Amino acid sequence: MEKVFSKKRLLKELNDCPSYEWIDPAELAEKLNGLAQIGKTREGGVSRFPYTVEEKQAKQLFSGWMEEIGLNVKEDAIGNLFGRLEGENPGLPAVLTGSHLDSVPNGGAFDGPLGCVSSLLAVKALIQSGAPLKRSVELVVFVDEEGARFNNSLFGSRTLMGEVKKEDLMKFKDQNGKVLYDAMKESGFDPDNISSAYRNPKEIHAFLELHIEQGKRLEAEGKNIGIVNGIAGPVWTSFTFYGETDHAGNTPMEYRKDTVAAAGEFILAVEQMPRMFSETAVATVGKMNIFPNGTNVIAGKTELMVDARDIDENARDRMIAALKNTAKEIAQKRGLSVEVKEEVKIPPVVVPDTIQEAVREAAETSGLTAIDIPSGAGHDAMIMGKYVPSGMIFVPSLNGRSHSPEEWTSLPDCVNGIQVMKKALKRLAND
Amino acid sequence: MEKVFSKKRLLKELNDCPSYEWIDPAELAEKLNGLAQIGKTREGGVSRFPYTVEEKQAKQLFSGWMEEIGLNVKEDAIGNLFGRLEGENPGLPAVLTGSHLDSVPNGGAFDGPLGCVSSLLAVKALIQSGAPLKRSVELVVFVDEEGARFNNSLFGSRTLMGEVKKEDLMKFKDQNGKVLYDAMKESGFDPDNISSAYRNPKEIHAFLELHIEQGKRLEAEGKNIGIVNGIAGPVWTSFTFYGETDHAGNTPMEYRKDTVAAAGEFILAVEQMPRMFSETAVATVGKMNIFPNGTNVIAGKTELMVDARDIDENARDRMIAALKNTAKEIAQKRGLSVEVKEEVKIPPVVVPDTIQEAVREAAETSGLTAIDIPSGAGHDAMIMGKYVPSGMIFVPSLNGRSHSPEEWTSLPDCVNGIQVMKKALKRLAND
Repeated sequence: MEKVFSKKRLLKELNDCPSYEWIDPAELAEKLNGLAQIGKTREGGVSRFPYTVEEKQAKQLFSGWMEEIGLNVKEDAIGNLFGRLEGENPGLPAVLTGSHLDSVPNGGAFDGPLGCVSSLLAVKALIQSGAPLKRSVELVVFVDEEGARFNNSLFGSRTLMGEVKKEDLMKFKDQNGKVLYDAMKESGFDPDNISSAYRNPKEIHAFLELHIEQGKRLEAEGKNIGIVNGIAGPVWTSFTFYGETDHAGNTPMEYRKDTVAAAGEFILAVEQMPRMFSETAVATVGKMNIFPNGTNVIAGKTELMVDARDIDENARDRMIAALKNTAKEIAQKRGLSVEVKEEVKIPPVVVPDTIQEAVREAAETSGLTAIDIPSGAGHDAMIMGKYVPSGMIFVPSLNGRSHSPEEWTSLPDCVNGIQVMKKALKRLAND
Repeated sequence: MEKVFSKKRLLKELNDCPSYEWIDPAELAEKLNGLAQIGKTREGGVSRFPYTVEEKQAKQLFSGWMEEIGLNVKEDAIGNLFGRLEGENPGLPAVLTGSHLDSVPNGGAFDGPLGCVSSLLAVKALIQSGAPLKRSVELVVFVDEEGARFNNSLFGSRTLMGEVKKEDLMKFKDQNGKVLYDAMKESGFDPDNISSAYRNPKEIHAFLELHIEQGKRLEAEGKNIGIVNGIAGPVWTSFTFYGETDHAGNTPMEYRKDTVAAAGEFILAVEQMPRMFSETAVATVGKMNIFPNGTNVIAGKTELMVDARDIDENARDRMIAALKNTAKEIAQKRGLSVEVKEEVKIPPVVVPDTIQEAVREAAETSGLTAIDIPSGAGHDAMIMGKYVPSGMIFVPSLNGRSHSPEEWTSLPDCVNGIQVMKKALKRLAND
């Protein structure tokens, strides 16, 4: 069985796709495949980081598709990309819809791209159907959603909503020490003019994003569509242990100030902590850097990033406080020091009933099964939701896999999502 | 107080140096400083990896010094560097002496260079003294002792003793995927002709290496010289856990196959294991690589390197067997798999009495205090000792620090070492 993305694998289920007006499943496969070739990894995954050649290529391809269906395309000063279809009453606040084209390292072909292409094909279907739309509908491709390069996730949507200032751009560096501000400039953007990328929330009626579930519930319960009712806000906290760099052969176990050993103890604490606070909480160490990282050197410095989330903000924040205490206790016991820094902190978001209802109606009138579901992953909709009514449509993920080359959603599941997006957009645009 | 290497710091104790015939403490400071400038790091340490511009520069500088004192200099097919002083009877097996010029990442200015420069200045003193030497004395600078770049430590001495074959050179890669064989070729060496670098052990009468202790005993007991009586053999074993790459937000704790969490548990086991087997055993995780190493990704693959050592070979091997079992138990319990690979395995070495006696007499007749001491660190002398009578002279390490920019040995301690080296070489060369 194939385990990674290919157009051929998608098209095997072409004949199983339900037939929806103005939606062409083969076009979806073609477009997803086009994006998946850009930044493709040896393992069959995708690595597309912000302000790189790969991300630029993906956006150029997508721009062309928006122009082909007659949208008015523009890119802002930081690289968010827009394609606008004017409504009958262009003065009304617009409906925004879309996702992102950047990825985690060696990620999948659906996380981000499926949201962008689904919104594109839904808008194309609305145009072809000739249905009147009161409000303008605007496609958006957010820059740097994952934060994989600069530890600065949801950068595009946070900027759009005016949360990022020019001076913030100096604070973030990639692994090679490249500063975000410089990377933006070198990619032809205009970080000095970042405020021109801010959008007044009053100009936005609603934001709707389609995404793969990245979990196992839809598949396990045999449902087509997840109506997202809330998004767990992530907190990213860095913990850096400082000890002593020593020779691994000549330093008896008793004399060591070993930061890797401290990290080992802390990793186990991170794994055990969530269940002490909430049933829905999660906490993860997925990134860790050891200095100097040599086989025969006791490491004098080790840095871990903890990703902690819950839809219950209070439980989440108590869990993080407990983790900070644990890190300090481990450091103290071992004669080390620890530096703790909150890198990202985003409150959970509730999806308004109006948006949930638009999605529910779209699913029901299309004959699809749907359940209410919280999102454990952060999304641009989580940022948008702080300022404008925002919601999400989930489609099933095979085995719940994501952020991996094995990420997969079947063509029928994708097409169902486009159909729901099409109907929900039509309703929101005529509100 | 200064914490890293500088010539100025060394020379502060110039007036405290004992006076020994034909040994100039200021010259030692000058030469150590010259080497410390090559590959100098921002933290004041040294990064000099095999087959790089930095290592080449250091060897060129050292070559020049050997030529200045009239040695016959040559480099072999893999980059081991030699400088020979012919004895009165050149047909007799020669006495070899020296160390290495490569370093760990951000290492110190003494580990390796002090051994090379001490042997150089000891030979220079013997030449200047006009003392007759029956046997030839040959300086040697071994290439790639630390193994920091290719996980292939003691490469130069293992090759000299015929342990490395051409096909072995294909097996080792650096972090960028560069194969050792290719790196050698690109640096102008001749890996196809590796067998020309083998030396018949019968041509070698003895090998003697001076080194910093890299431990705290000499300092704690107030002794000048350590007479090394044995060298603990290291075993380097890689443990790679395989699990599932998943999204950190949308994967409940119960559904994870998290290789970082497994690594955390294993790191603690590595820390606790040595004391169950021996008082002198040590085990260290200093190097670990997480894939893909992203904050919001549960890592599907994590690789750890374990460095385990003891002068008691049996205890050491039982400890490693226990670690392998523990890794398998952790993997099984968590639904992961683990791949175990022995990368390096070197038996402990006993230093013959003849060599110990030569060092002891040299220290005593110079009015210096000395103790017998085992070496917990591996050295080229450990490889040489498998084939020819080999020994080591230890000098004190401040706070036991090594493999760190804070590595330090005072100028008087260094000069005492050269004096002992000079006398011991003279005795061995007239055996």
